[in-house]
Amino acid sequence: MEQNGKIQNSEVCQLKNEHLKSMTSDYLYHFGLNTDNLQERFGDVKFVCVGGSAHRMKMFAEYLREQLAGYVSVGDDLNDITGAAHRYSMYKVGPVLSVSHGIGAPSLAVMLDELFKLLYYAKCTSVTIFRIGTSGGIGVQPGTVVITDQALNGFLQPHYEQIILGKVITREAVLDKTLVSEIKAVAEKMDDIEVVTGGTMCAADFYEAQGRLDGSVCNYTADDKKQFLQKLFNAGVRNIEMESVCIAAKCHLVNIKCAIVCVALLNRLHGDQITTPPELYKKYELRPQRLVTQFIKTKLGFK
Amino acid sequence: MEQNGKIQNSEVCQLKNEHLKSMTSDYLYHFGLNTDNLQERFGDVKFVCVGGSAHRMKMFAEYLREQLAGYVSVGDDLNDITGAAHRYSMYKVGPVLSVSHGIGAPSLAVMLDELFKLLYYAKCTSVTIFRIGTSGGIGVQPGTVVITDQALNGFLQPHYEQIILGKVITREAVLDKTLVSEIKAVAEKMDDIEVVTGGTMCAADFYEAQGRLDGSVCNYTADDKKQFLQKLFNAGVRNIEMESVCIAAKCHLVNIKCAIVCVALLNRLHGDQITTPPELYKKYELRPQRLVTQFIKTKLGFK
Repeated sequence: MEQNGKIQNSEVCQLKNEHLKSMTSDYLYHFGLNTDNLQERFGDVKFVCVGGSAHRMKMFAEYLREQLAGYVSVGDDLNDITGAAHRYSMYKVGPVLSVSHGIGAPSLAVMLDELFKLLYYAKCTSVTIFRIGTSGGIGVQPGTVVITDQALNGFLQPHYEQIILGKVITREAVLDKTLVSEIKAVAEKMDDIEVVTGGTMCAADFYEAQGRLDGSVCNYTADDKKQFLQKLFNAGVRNIEMESVCIAAKCHLVNIKCAIVCVALLNRLHGDQITTPPELYKKYELRPQRLVTQFIKTKLGFK
Repeated sequence: MEQNGKIQNSEVCQLKNEHLKSMTSDYLYHFGLNTDNLQERFGDVKFVCVGGSAHRMKMFAEYLREQLAGYVSVGDDLNDITGAAHRYSMYKVGPVLSVSHGIGAPSLAVMLDELFKLLYYAKCTSVTIFRIGTSGGIGVQPGTVVITDQALNGFLQPHYEQIILGKVITREAVLDKTLVSEIKAVAEKMDDIEVVTGGTMCAADFYEAQGRLDGSVCNYTADDKKQFLQKLFNAGVRNIEMESVCIAAKCHLVNIKCAIVCVALLNRLHGDQITTPPELYKKYELRPQRLVTQFIKTKLGFK
């Protein structure tokens, strides 16, 4: 276990890599960006919102542009900054970046490494990252927004494990409790959104690793599944998704505050299949976006 | 370790999940497909080509359509069959599907579970899956195509590990040696493509897990990295990517033949950064596509 200590107060993104100092250039391959003019282009970024699908993050950028009208200049079409590299999508709306990360921890990890380098080269300060996603709820009603207070792996440990040079390296998945409370307080003023705080289990697939019975392979019984999900509920877990320990650990390593705000599309204690009708799905999917936008507006001084 | 035995000769996709038999409907959520008419729409599929980026898999479908002209009807625009679900892209060109899987094993695993269910409901027989991707080479020239003869995890074991209901389940990553030889034989007739067979290491991120020195965090020295990459080379590893043990193990579990054909964009013994000029990148990226298309044409009886 690498000990990273407590969350530091310094406002600057602190990369933990001495090798970068001796590099004369650095190409962010999955973003298709070199380091030219990064400070000029991105130096004002204070918030980064990330989510799985490129489509959702484009919709979110459009929503943000409406919501921050007056604060940011609303003019040209939104430009996908990293789209030419064909891996992730990124949009900038004033001090907010909206970035897709795909599905699962490895896809997220690649994006975060390049995002952190971007923020570092751009000399950004006091950045907060939000994951706005979808998830399977545990003992909560469909449509409930879960603000993660603890990210846990499949053994219910707050750990992100990597295999580096043939050895297991374990990083702590640490989230900022104050930020969780601040987001909760904003949510409580929004009458039409049910919000809970709770643990989030991070799985490495959608079917077996989440205890579903409807994957291509399943070697356990419905009762085994039920017992496991009940164990999660008893441990305070309120949803399952596929990225939480990775984002919590990686942000903590580089001293960036991070929050995970996901809507539960179903209650896994009652089933496995997601058959939410399209209109309801859109409404649910928008809830984390609306909550995080409201939080950002509060921080920017909107009334 | 679950023992899956030797590769079986049966031609039908064999799902290993008794629960599916009692389901009255099954919605393939990440594909946005229900099970209506799947046999009619997909029953003739014999080859599935998968790769990371949606853009690449669309370009591949367009290339295939040209190459199979006369054999498949060339008419309407290519339609992204699963695009409305905003997670993966899928195109059908006669007996070939071209599907994106995103980055990393979890993203691939979600797609494969739904792909296997699709092939099962469509009653497809004798299907072969090819991963056509990009990778970092180990001791090979940039542009070399590596046909994987053994997929290995970060400990150099041929294992895909999942955490299921709180326990580690290890599945064997087994590849069909005959298929490797057959693809190699086709490649040897293509004068302008350098091909090798070798081991492929599957990593869970792009930077630390692949021994790069240019991530946001790096706690090892250039010498540690060099020793690790040399150890890989000595063990027969010729490239590193992020999906190989997952696809090899999951296909083996459901009795589908699978091959992994990736181009090396750089030789990692000489550096970490990918700065291939765009035109050369396109040429390299096309090589696995050209090789697999030639293999498919041979199987379909093209002269």
